[in-house]
Amino acid sequence: MEFKPIGVIHSPYKSGDKVPNQSKFSEKTAEIEVYPEFEDGLLDLEGFSHILVTWVLHKSGGFKLITETPHDTKKHGVFATRSPNRPNSIAISVSELMRRNGRILHIKGIDAIEGSPVLDIKPYIPNVDEVAEPRLGWFGARKKA
Amino acid sequence: MEFKPIGVIHSPYKSGDKVPNQSKFSEKTAEIEVYPEFEDGLLDLEGFSHILVTWVLHKSGGFKLITETPHDTKKHGVFATRSPNRPNSIAISVSELMRRNGRILHIKGIDAIEGSPVLDIKPYIPNVDEVAEPRLGWFGARKKA
Repeated sequence: MEFKPIGVIHSPYKSGDKVPNQSKFSEKTAEIEVYPEFEDGLLDLEGFSHILVTWVLHKSGGFKLITETPHDTKKHGVFATRSPNRPNSIAISVSELMRRNGRILHIKGIDAIEGSPVLDIKPYIPNVDEVAEPRLGWFGARKKA
Repeated sequence: MEFKPIGVIHSPYKSGDKVPNQSKFSEKTAEIEVYPEFEDGLLDLEGFSHILVTWVLHKSGGFKLITETPHDTKKHGVFATRSPNRPNSIAISVSELMRRNGRILHIKGIDAIEGSPVLDIKPYIPNVDEVAEPRLGWFGARKKA
């Protein structure tokens, strides 16, 4: 299946090994540059404080179905982790939209590296995106570092 | 950018016009059939009560950058809506994982139609996927039906 980027991420992180594990909680900011032909699609987005960004881990190198994770000593199936090395290297980030300047979105809380292609942007809406008291499997049961 | 489905959704909805707007809250169940070559990647997924399913709206017909929505009388930019008709027709659903039988995931709460290709499955983890008190722009300000 073929997809075409609608924009690109400009990030303070220049390579994968520099991205902190919990960059969601980082104060660092990044920009999403939406390509000119898609700018009209951003109308009214600035009213939302948070967006779901679907982007591509374009430097991800292959995948293992059973994979290590920084959060546990035991290996887990890749679909039971948030590992960047996945069969389809698609990332989903919930990011704070600080402001929009035309087709530039200033955001906080993303673990993308410079140049990551963006496939989609959606408004974050709790009654479709949120779960009350989910069960967290190995992630909830692990010994915290 | 080229992606290959890792599985397919078997849904009680056979076409787009039969999918309810709020199917997240439906009691109807669906199945994700993960293809045999990816089954090992599901190890330990069953511990999680909810999953983020990234799938393709394969019957979506084109898009408009400024679009109608069933939730408002005013039009909005497509990236400020959850319209299925997007430049890249990628959907993200938070679904309840009721149980796993091998490579079949029994889920509740998805608005996919039969045969929708699945690109990725991730565990739902509140401290990366959830936002406290987000601002909801036009969606929060609209007159509720």
